[in-house]
Amino acid sequence: MHTDRRTLLQAAAALPLATVGANAAFAQTPTTTPVAAPPKEVTRALAHYLVTASYDDLPANVRKEGVRTLLNWVGVAIGGSHHETVDIAVSALGPFSGPQQASLFGRRERFDIMNAAFINGVSSHIFDYDDTHLKTIIHPAGPVASAILALSEMQPVSGKDFLNALVLGVETECRIGNSVYPNHYDVGWHITGTAGVFGSAAAVGKLLKLNEQQMTWALGLAASQPVGLRESFGSMNKSFNPGRAASSGIFAAILASKNFTSSDAMIEAKRGWANTISTKQDYNEILGDLGKRYEAALNTYKPFACGIVMHPAIDAAIQLRNEGKVTADQIERVDLKVHPLVLELTGKKTPKAGLEGKFSIYHAVAVAIVEGAGGEKQFSDRAVTDPTIVALRSKVNPVVTPGIKPEQVDLTIVLKDGRKLNRYIEHAIGSVEVPMTDKQLEAKFSDLAEGIIPAATIRRVMDACWNVENLPSAAEIARMSVAS
Amino acid sequence: MHTDRRTLLQAAAALPLATVGANAAFAQTPTTTPVAAPPKEVTRALAHYLVTASYDDLPANVRKEGVRTLLNWVGVAIGGSHHETVDIAVSALGPFSGPQQASLFGRRERFDIMNAAFINGVSSHIFDYDDTHLKTIIHPAGPVASAILALSEMQPVSGKDFLNALVLGVETECRIGNSVYPNHYDVGWHITGTAGVFGSAAAVGKLLKLNEQQMTWALGLAASQPVGLRESFGSMNKSFNPGRAASSGIFAAILASKNFTSSDAMIEAKRGWANTISTKQDYNEILGDLGKRYEAALNTYKPFACGIVMHPAIDAAIQLRNEGKVTADQIERVDLKVHPLVLELTGKKTPKAGLEGKFSIYHAVAVAIVEGAGGEKQFSDRAVTDPTIVALRSKVNPVVTPGIKPEQVDLTIVLKDGRKLNRYIEHAIGSVEVPMTDKQLEAKFSDLAEGIIPAATIRRVMDACWNVENLPSAAEIARMSVAS
Repeated sequence: MHTDRRTLLQAAAALPLATVGANAAFAQTPTTTPVAAPPKEVTRALAHYLVTASYDDLPANVRKEGVRTLLNWVGVAIGGSHHETVDIAVSALGPFSGPQQASLFGRRERFDIMNAAFINGVSSHIFDYDDTHLKTIIHPAGPVASAILALSEMQPVSGKDFLNALVLGVETECRIGNSVYPNHYDVGWHITGTAGVFGSAAAVGKLLKLNEQQMTWALGLAASQPVGLRESFGSMNKSFNPGRAASSGIFAAILASKNFTSSDAMIEAKRGWANTISTKQDYNEILGDLGKRYEAALNTYKPFACGIVMHPAIDAAIQLRNEGKVTADQIERVDLKVHPLVLELTGKKTPKAGLEGKFSIYHAVAVAIVEGAGGEKQFSDRAVTDPTIVALRSKVNPVVTPGIKPEQVDLTIVLKDGRKLNRYIEHAIGSVEVPMTDKQLEAKFSDLAEGIIPAATIRRVMDACWNVENLPSAAEIARMSVAS
Repeated sequence: MHTDRRTLLQAAAALPLATVGANAAFAQTPTTTPVAAPPKEVTRALAHYLVTASYDDLPANVRKEGVRTLLNWVGVAIGGSHHETVDIAVSALGPFSGPQQASLFGRRERFDIMNAAFINGVSSHIFDYDDTHLKTIIHPAGPVASAILALSEMQPVSGKDFLNALVLGVETECRIGNSVYPNHYDVGWHITGTAGVFGSAAAVGKLLKLNEQQMTWALGLAASQPVGLRESFGSMNKSFNPGRAASSGIFAAILASKNFTSSDAMIEAKRGWANTISTKQDYNEILGDLGKRYEAALNTYKPFACGIVMHPAIDAAIQLRNEGKVTADQIERVDLKVHPLVLELTGKKTPKAGLEGKFSIYHAVAVAIVEGAGGEKQFSDRAVTDPTIVALRSKVNPVVTPGIKPEQVDLTIVLKDGRKLNRYIEHAIGSVEVPMTDKQLEAKFSDLAEGIIPAATIRRVMDACWNVENLPSAAEIARMSVAS
C-alpha cells in the first residue's frame, strides 16, 4: 500500500472544478494539507490489544460476567424470536440469504451468518429486555453475541475462544462508546448501533485470527458503517440497529481477513470516526488500562420487561409479596413515594393493552403483587385485563416525593386488617449494586424461552451457557436454541 | 403502529438508573419531552414525490442525462472489475452470497443482489473515474445504478421504469446531499456513502412499488445506515463506501417492502439524520421544486483518469496536439500557467509507477501530447516509463500564475521551429459548462471495457444503454456486460 500517494490522488480527484469557484475549491484544500498528529495511534493500539489478548488473561469476575451476558442474551433472543418484527425480517431476507450457515434462535430457519446475525440481533432487542452497560446505555450483547454465535456455526470455535471474543467485543464497543458518550448519544446517535459495529468486527476478527494490520482495517471498515439514530426509537428500526451492527461488523471483519484495506487511523484521525461523529473524544477511555479495567464486568440485566424507572417499585412489591404472603384480596391500598419521572413516564391509570401496561406504574405494581413477577407475560393483554389485577391497580397510589431519586422507591402495602408492609429500595434488582442472581437470570431465561423451545432443552441450553468455557464447540449453544 | 406509546416505552427503557445519579438521569429526559415540530414533513413529502413521480414526468434533458449517467457508470464498472480490490471483495463474500441473482459487471460470477450491488459499486469507483455531481462531490451512479441494475435481474423492470428509478435515486441522494453540504462533508463524512444510501433505497423502493408509508420507512432505514468517512480516502475503503451504500439501500427497501417500520420523520426529526449528522440543514434543497429542478441533470463525467485539477492542462494539450498534428520530437518546451493547487497536488517530476503519474502534471501533459488521451492506460506503469513520454515530460514547465483559477489553464507549446501553439481553457472538458460529448463518453467506455468484455459486445452494451428507454427489460444491460 502506498497510502500517502493514494490519499493525494483521492484528494485531487475530489477537488471540485467547474461549477464552483476558486473559493469553494480552496475550501476543500484542508484535505490535502498534513493532518495534525492524533493523540495516539488509537486504532492500531486497540487492534494490537485485540489480537494479543487471550482467554487466560481474563480475570475470573470478567469471565463470570461474560457467561452471564451470554445466558441473558440467549434468553432474550429466543424470547423475541416470534415477534412480528422478526417474522418480517425473516420473510423479507429469506430470498437473499446465502448458505444455511447459522441458526435463528427460537426458530427453524437457517441463514448465512450475516443475515442470521442480523435477525438474531433484532430478536434479542425487540423487548428492550437485553443487557445494558449503564455508563453508555449500550446494549452490548446484541451486536457481539449475535455475530460470533453465527460465526461459531461456520468454523470451529472453542468455548474458551468464544468467551474471550465475547468479552473483547463488549470491551471494544463499550470503550469506544465511553470515548464519545454522552455528546454522541445526546445529539441523536443510537450508540448501541454506532459503537456496536466495532464490537462485532473486533469479536469476529478475533475468531478469524486477524493479524494486527487486518484488525486495524476491520475496525476501519466498522467505523465506516455506523448504525442507528434515536429518532427510530418506538419503531422496528430500533431493534434493526443492534442487528445491523452485528451483520455490518461481520462484513467488515470478513473483508479485512482477505486484506481489504482501510486507513490505519480510522478512529482517531482528523476526519475519522470520533471527530466526525462526536464533539467529545476521550481516547483514554479506549486505551486506558487495557486488560486491567474491564467494562464488560459492568454489564447489567433487566429483571423486568418494562422501562427501568418502574423497576424499584416492582422490586419492592415482589419482595413484600413473597415475604408477607400477601394476596390481592387482603389489600386496602398500596402507597408509593416516587421520583417525578415515574408519573411522567408511566402514569397511565387504565391500560387496555399489554404494551400500555409498560407505561402504567399502577399496573406494574398490581401485577407484581398478584403474580410475583414483571416479565413479558406480566405486560400482556391477558395481564392488563385480568380482573384481580385490574381491581388491585385502582388501589395503587403513587405520590411524587422530594428526596426520592429515580433509582429509589418507598412502598407500603396497607392491609385491610390494618397491618402495613413497607420496603424502601435504594437500588433496584438488576443494577450494578444489586445484580440479578444467577438464579434470577435462569428464571428470566425460562420465562422467555417457555413455549418456544422445549422445556427440557431450556435446561440444557442454560447449562451449556454456564459451561461455555468447557465446550469444545460454542456452536452447540446456537444449535440447541432452535424451535423443535 | 402506536408510535407515541412505543416511543414512550423505549424512552423509559433507555433511562439509566443504578450507576448514574439523579442529574445524569435528568440529562436523559429530553428524550421524553415533546420534540419541536420539524419545518416540514420532509421524509414523508419526499416519499410522496418518489412514489408518484413517473417516467412521463421527466423532461427530455433529464432523461438524456440519465442515459449518459448509465452509460458512463457501466463503463467504469466494467473497467474496474478486475482491480485487486474487487478480486478481494469477490473472494471474501463468495462464501456468504445468496442465490446467483445478479451479474458482476466485467466478470463471470453471479451473486445475490445485495452482494452484487456492493461489488459493482466498488468496481465503479475504484479508478475514481465515475460521475460527479459537482455541487456536492457526490458520485451519484455508484450507489444507485449498482442497486437497481442488480434488482432488474431479479424482477422484470422495463427500461422506462429503470430510467425513472435511476433519475429519482440520483435526485434523492443529491438533494439530501445539498441539504447538508458543505458542513457535513467538511467535518469528515464521505457524502457519496452517507447520501448514497438514500439514493439506493429510493430507487429500489420505486422499482419495488412501495407505497408512501413503505417508502417513508425505506428512507428511515436508509438514514440509519450512513456509510463512509473521508479518512478512508487512499485505501480500498473509499470504494467500499458507494458499494455499501448500494447494498444497504437495497436492504432498507426490501425490509420496508414487508412493512418493517421506521420513524416517519427520520430525515428531519430533532434526533433524526440531518440534525445528527450535520450542522447545516436546508430542507428546501430536498423539497424545493420537486419535479421541476433536477439535480440529476447536472451530472458530469470525468474525461481523464486522474485528479480533476490536471484536467484543464490535459484538455489543452490534447486540443493542440490534435489541431496542430504536433509530435513530441518537434517540441522545444511546453509552458503552462497554472493555479497553485496544480503544483501542490500534482508536482511530481519523475513518476516511476503509473499511480505516481496521476500526481504528475509533467507526465499528464506529456502523455496527452504523445497519445492524445488521459485514460487509465495513460496512467499505467507502461506510460510513465515510455522513453518518448519521459523525454517530453522534462520539457513541461508549469508556472503558478496569479489570476488563473483551478478550473483554468493557459498552455503554450513552443516548437523547435519557433512556432507557438497556445490554448487557454476557461472550463475543461467534463465540466457542466463543457460536457463530454456522447462520442467522448463512448470512447471512454470502449477504452475501459476493452480486453474485459469482447469488442463486439462493447458496441452492443453501449447501444443498449443509449436505447435503455425502449428496452423491455433493463436486465439486458447487466447480462451483456459480463466477461465471456
